[in-house]
Amino acid sequence: MNQPLTKYIIEAKEAESMAKSKNLTLPQLLPSLVKPAQNLARSPISKFAVGVAGLVSDGRIFLGANVEFPGLPLHHTIHGEQFLITNLAANAAGEKLLYIAVSATPCGHCRQFFQELRGISETQIVITDQPEINPDYKPLSSILPNPFGPYDLLDERTPLILDKHNNQLSLKDDKLITQNGNSINLSTGYDESLKTDTFKTARGLQALSLSAGYEETLETEALKAARESHAPYSGCLSGVALMDCDGKVYRGSYMESAAYNPSMMPAQAALVAYMVAGGDGFEKIVAAVLVEKEAAVVRQEDTVRLFMKYVSPKCDLRVVHCN
Amino acid sequence: MNQPLTKYIIEAKEAESMAKSKNLTLPQLLPSLVKPAQNLARSPISKFAVGVAGLVSDGRIFLGANVEFPGLPLHHTIHGEQFLITNLAANAAGEKLLYIAVSATPCGHCRQFFQELRGISETQIVITDQPEINPDYKPLSSILPNPFGPYDLLDERTPLILDKHNNQLSLKDDKLITQNGNSINLSTGYDESLKTDTFKTARGLQALSLSAGYEETLETEALKAARESHAPYSGCLSGVALMDCDGKVYRGSYMESAAYNPSMMPAQAALVAYMVAGGDGFEKIVAAVLVEKEAAVVRQEDTVRLFMKYVSPKCDLRVVHCN
Ligand SMILES: [Zn+2]
Ligand SMILES: [Zn+2]
Repeated sequence: MNQPLTKYIIEAKEAESMAKSKNLTLPQLLPSLVKPAQNLARSPISKFAVGVAGLVSDGRIFLGANVEFPGLPLHHTIHGEQFLITNLAANAAGEKLLYIAVSATPCGHCRQFFQELRGISETQIVITDQPEINPDYKPLSSILPNPFGPYDLLDERTPLILDKHNNQLSLKDDKLITQNGNSINLSTGYDESLKTDTFKTARGLQALSLSAGYEETLETEALKAARESHAPYSGCLSGVALMDCDGKVYRGSYMESAAYNPSMMPAQAALVAYMVAGGDGFEKIVAAVLVEKEAAVVRQEDTVRLFMKYVSPKCDLRVVHCN
Repeated sequence: MNQPLTKYIIEAKEAESMAKSKNLTLPQLLPSLVKPAQNLARSPISKFAVGVAGLVSDGRIFLGANVEFPGLPLHHTIHGEQFLITNLAANAAGEKLLYIAVSATPCGHCRQFFQELRGISETQIVITDQPEINPDYKPLSSILPNPFGPYDLLDERTPLILDKHNNQLSLKDDKLITQNGNSINLSTGYDESLKTDTFKTARGLQALSLSAGYEETLETEALKAARESHAPYSGCLSGVALMDCDGKVYRGSYMESAAYNPSMMPAQAALVAYMVAGGDGFEKIVAAVLVEKEAAVVRQEDTVRLFMKYVSPKCDLRVVHCN
């Protein structure tokens, strides 16, 4: 822990060896990751850094931190706990969140958003950034008694955020895009030709469109994000894919809350993916695609446009409608 | 209670006589007003009507109901409890909220927003729409234990939502606008010349501007709303004034939450004022002014514009900056 921790996902083996070296169990280790998580916060408005660490059923530890956006209304803010949940949704579908350690008592908004995770009432939470031998874990239900939750509105079989989502969606102009996007591998190198100076300005994108085919890549990824989105309350699925100036692509799925307002917007979710992958300056994001239904009762287009204008003014945003 | 209740504020005398006629105390009466409050809900997306009734220290009863906005992201939604708080902020500053009855268990977002009211932990809440002799009131602290609240960030003397706010603000072009707006009386008749057909279309406004002086009225009221706004976290005060096609003016103050996201946007607050005053179709709102600081770190302009575009597409919105 002497070096600053700069990653948002700690693999099971690494977590285990960290715990072993300190003679701790994983739940005992968890609070010691709260300060490193806090260091990942971007809170220029509040100057109040929130860090969260979550232990998942497969032994991995996920971190989250709050992110604020100057120039925009406060509902664009990503809380540390919401960052964690978005990180889990993207990278730990099918797992369970077992333990959470957080730097400050969670706000009601986050306690509400946690309700979108199946079995959350039993998840154990502790509010401390200090490593302790006996962390004072309590069930999450103890800080939101008598909650309003998904099952006040949904059938119990409806997938929640960490359950697998595979919504049947296709792009409106009947482009065929394969479900598993076998032509794209996000972790390995993207077309090297994209790493040019011209790519670094949004207007330079046009020059690259023929050679790189990045538009289709973004559409494919945004459609995938929409397929994985959690919108059981409105039915208005949506997803965003972002591309940075190195040609790397990041996707984010819209996630609704039973209580409506604490929902996670798709562009914010994609930005979380960008940060989790190590992305730093948001102005490096040069292209984006939003996929959503055309006449949806919950429409993201104008708000994503507004958000991206502040987050990365030169980013080129396209909207593709789906069925 | 046989006639539908269509108002959001019940005067103390009326509340008292309602209670007496049923041989009930005011806290016992309160749950019987939850269904009438639910009837005021506008929930075209969720079809889930939330009604809230609140008893205030001066004996008045205030109602709130949820309002949803098709075409916009869900963070624009006004929850019943937030409606109630906005109604109180506009009409019961200096009072205390003693009892609440609500149709469904409040979501975490609302439990959080309630924290902006001084002494809220002792406010008694019951979740029922049934009149009962022994309503099961519990302190609000029991449904949000260990809350994150204003005093995690502020000095205890900072005014909260129901405390008097009188922020020192003036319009940027040094127009002199008196604090008490003595030239304007909202409840009595507004210039009759405004009630013309041309006024009913936004473009018709221009023709009226010389005779009616409505622009200055709206600026005065929006400035007042900004002065009364609650923005201790960002310092970014703002207010909106709306005018309907009858020339009536309604103002709404921005109200922040310590937890950021549950904040109440100024245009929504003004819309609450419109509904409380009996306003019905939102398309009757033809002119609006937003007052905010120019280079504010939390800026409302684009979002108010987006909101009004969906709520009343023909509404003419002007932004005036303040110091
Ligand atoms: Zn939070
Ligand atoms: Zn609520």
